[in-house]
Amino acid sequence: MELKMDVEEVSGFLAKVFPQIDGAFQVEEMRPMGARVRMLIGEHNLRPGGTVSGPSMFTAVDCAFYVGVLGMIGPEALTVTTNCSIDFMRKPLPGDLIAEVTIHKLGRVLAVGDVLLYSDGMDAPVARASLTYSIPPKQAS
Amino acid sequence: MELKMDVEEVSGFLAKVFPQIDGAFQVEEMRPMGARVRMLIGEHNLRPGGTVSGPSMFTAVDCAFYVGVLGMIGPEALTVTTNCSIDFMRKPLPGDLIAEVTIHKLGRVLAVGDVLLYSDGMDAPVARASLTYSIPPKQAS
Amino acid sequence: MELKMDVEEVSGFLAKVFPQIDGAFQVEEMRPMGARVRMLIGEHNLRPGGTVSGPSMFTAVDCAFYVGVLGMIGPEALTVTTNCSIDFMRKPLPGDLIAEVTIHKLGRVLAVGDVLLYSDGMDAPVARASLTYSIPPKQAS
Amino acid sequence: MELKMDVEEVSGFLAKVFPQIDGAFQVEEMRPMGARVRMLIGEHNLRPGGTVSGPSMFTAVDCAFYVGVLGMIGPEALTVTTNCSIDFMRKPLPGDLIAEVTIHKLGRVLAVGDVLLYSDGMDAPVARASLTYSIPPKQAS
Repeated sequence: MELKMDVEEVSGFLAKVFPQIDGAFQVEEMRPMGARVRMLIGEHNLRPGGTVSGPSMFTAVDCAFYVGVLGMIGPEALTVTTNCSIDFMRKPLPGDLIAEVTIHKLGRVLAVGDVLLYSDGMDAPVARASLTYSIPPKQAS
Repeated sequence: MELKMDVEEVSGFLAKVFPQIDGAFQVEEMRPMGARVRMLIGEHNLRPGGTVSGPSMFTAVDCAFYVGVLGMIGPEALTVTTNCSIDFMRKPLPGDLIAEVTIHKLGRVLAVGDVLLYSDGMDAPVARASLTYSIPPKQAS
Repeated sequence: MELKMDVEEVSGFLAKVFPQIDGAFQVEEMRPMGARVRMLIGEHNLRPGGTVSGPSMFTAVDCAFYVGVLGMIGPEALTVTTNCSIDFMRKPLPGDLIAEVTIHKLGRVLAVGDVLLYSDGMDAPVARASLTYSIPPKQAS
Repeated sequence: MELKMDVEEVSGFLAKVFPQIDGAFQVEEMRPMGARVRMLIGEHNLRPGGTVSGPSMFTAVDCAFYVGVLGMIGPEALTVTTNCSIDFMRKPLPGDLIAEVTIHKLGRVLAVGDVLLYSDGMDAPVARASLTYSIPPKQAS
């Protein structure tokens, strides 16, 4: 299957439909059935001890998978996460998170895939997640 | 198994160890192997269309389960979520979230349980989640 | 929502469409958005040490949820499991398994719910699972 | 981390400790933090319509992950699955299943990883799963 949006197009779409997350995410790579997205980490994402909070890691994973799906289906604001199973495996460093997305299935109504989440500067992933997205039916025009 | 901390004790502990979330959570009930926790929702938790964001729902579920576990093991800042599988089932209203926690297993090293997440004013749950927490070994003194 | 099939109707339907599991499952109770199903355990379900195997517990959970969904949507052989997240919490005794099903959402295309799995003779559940079922669109006639 | 058991050693160990599954599984490849395992499919694994049953796919995934962990920790019969989250994505053909295992974390007490499950003769995976295994403490001798 072919990519429908490149890095610039996805970034422009995100800035328009999710202005509230603008600035926190950088789309680094778009590829067929995959993407790499960086989440910039600030003070408000940290926990005592200088590690990134679980909800921040969830946010990174969820947003990155959305980006990966967007690349394959084109500009659709309305896909929604229906399931996420996330395993927290290692403590991240107090810095950026990098999410590597792989889509395993892109059906008519559901997209299913995995995200490996890395902490910038560490080799081993800090979390792994699988997600299911519901893709809304096309509106008749 | 018996409850080790009541509503007041858990609330005081949270305010001390997680000052950054203070104000957003209200512990409404502590019971053996369970708890009910309210998350106050503000503008920054909303998505376009006036629904509560997925990461906010994850935060509610994760914090509520932590509260439930605290009640059973006593003041331990260091338990960590190792897995969360969450199903988003319905769109929440743009208001508070209420998490009902049930702990199914409280072992020596792992706690496992479920959370049903409600949107204040709706009857049916907006999300369900299961979580596993790792309980750190007691330090020898 | 109302129950569309009672214990007798579901049992008859199962015997007809899944003859290969006939005999292994007993539908004990059907209720709105829930069911209780017993799985009879034989030698081939056991592991060394006399405990019930993980795949047998998965089978119990999956079949019981199917039964619960059948009760609400009526005789439909074609629903399929799309996701199951199962936590194995305690070693079962070498005897029957009893699955308590609760459906949290019954949508047009997806059903979502939980199963608590008990080992006959033990109080605490041996496993918990959440499942998502895909409900096929009605055929135009 | 280094592999502690090769294909022959793992196969011999399985035949000894799990004689009941002997014959159904073929360990095809052992590699550091990974493995490929084939499950031979017979009549009893099929559903009406000629597809492999969900419980059979779960069995393939669970056994393959066990094999992958064995390779890294050496002969330990007692590791147990604590969680499995599996997404069923496509209908398998009525033939063998091939499981590709990747271990993401091998800790002192927990192993976490992913399995992609293929149906022999299809390119796209039929299921994806993530698993957590509990590794028992070494017995003092």
